[in-house]
Amino acid sequence: MAGSFNQQTPRAVVEHLVRERVYREMGLPLPRQAKAPNGLVVNVSARHCHLTQEAVEALFGPGHQLTPVKDLYQHGAYAAAEAVTLIGPRSRVISNLRVLGPCRDLNQIELAYTDAISLGFDIPTRMSGDVAGTPGCMLMGPNGYFKMEEGVIRAAPHVHMHPDDAAYYGVSHMDKMKLKVHGECGVTFDNLVVRVDESFKLEAHIDTDEGNACGLKPDTFCELIK
Amino acid sequence: MAGSFNQQTPRAVVEHLVRERVYREMGLPLPRQAKAPNGLVVNVSARHCHLTQEAVEALFGPGHQLTPVKDLYQHGAYAAAEAVTLIGPRSRVISNLRVLGPCRDLNQIELAYTDAISLGFDIPTRMSGDVAGTPGCMLMGPNGYFKMEEGVIRAAPHVHMHPDDAAYYGVSHMDKMKLKVHGECGVTFDNLVVRVDESFKLEAHIDTDEGNACGLKPDTFCELIK
Repeated sequence: MAGSFNQQTPRAVVEHLVRERVYREMGLPLPRQAKAPNGLVVNVSARHCHLTQEAVEALFGPGHQLTPVKDLYQHGAYAAAEAVTLIGPRSRVISNLRVLGPCRDLNQIELAYTDAISLGFDIPTRMSGDVAGTPGCMLMGPNGYFKMEEGVIRAAPHVHMHPDDAAYYGVSHMDKMKLKVHGECGVTFDNLVVRVDESFKLEAHIDTDEGNACGLKPDTFCELIK
Repeated sequence: MAGSFNQQTPRAVVEHLVRERVYREMGLPLPRQAKAPNGLVVNVSARHCHLTQEAVEALFGPGHQLTPVKDLYQHGAYAAAEAVTLIGPRSRVISNLRVLGPCRDLNQIELAYTDAISLGFDIPTRMSGDVAGTPGCMLMGPNGYFKMEEGVIRAAPHVHMHPDDAAYYGVSHMDKMKLKVHGECGVTFDNLVVRVDESFKLEAHIDTDEGNACGLKPDTFCELIK
């Protein structure tokens, strides 16, 4: 069975498959949790930015293409080798802000509130892509500056899921669910936004404040509750 | 009625008293929430330290006494004018770490995990005072250094309450309750530790990661759930 997995298969996915296999081989009825089509992965998104190709070229040079260095769990998404310096409203900076690829058609910075407060930003909680009227900032790269008129947000906690997962949990795109994180500092996130797409793998995204509030570790048991 | 309050009366306490008065004056039965003996105040504790008199003198000079500058909600507790520099395991520092008074019989630093990670600390979640085996650190003040052998913790989220509150909620000292924080980024803290004492006013304490995760503001509705 080990051959089915590579090093990047998240523990929650392996456990889900093992659980399902064990129940089947023992001839036992599957408990509801083991009937889920996919294991739930919860990942903490540290602060990062999404850039347009135009911004990449302003920051890193004409014709520059992002360099993938680490695949993320969602298909096609990656952490790039490139990082930028973010200059906030009071000239405070965050250096080494990671760029995620591939390029998008809008520029967006995702910070936790702790990051935003330390920079002096007053930012709203938004879904990715919904940046109208949000604060802007200056970015600096090795080739120069790029001014974002808007796009600095705290991302709303959310869960990506395939339509099969949505059917299992009985939810639709943009519904809200709860994410219960067990353990010593157990926390339930009561307004997790559901995002459904054919291309999505089941994965909840929380930010560093949320991940640190609940002390999330690789073996922390997490569940989605409608 | 305004004369009954000073500027330091928390909004939640004023609202609780108004709610109770309105129901009574309208001759309506009190809903359960209005029957609570006290309004629930939720405060975010930013990183801080508690020091012994010995540590205060090492850091600020022989015979030095802490200078109260702001009363905290619990009777007798205050933020002091004094602040120290904390030096972590990789020589990273946090300056202006606030000292809370009065002096205690042990030294304790309370950090959020975001603070601890940025300093390179691996700290456990503990109740205040339970510091055996926790990491130590160096502190620096205007008069010199002070070495703490242990005492750097992330404080477990907790709620202070008077025995009257404990009776109302049906809980005892060291029980666990839930703290539900409503709003856009609603979060339920599932393991809030109950601390009961005759001297305590009803107040939940969460750290900056927890406060930022739920976007707590002065008008956020919060409730305790057994």
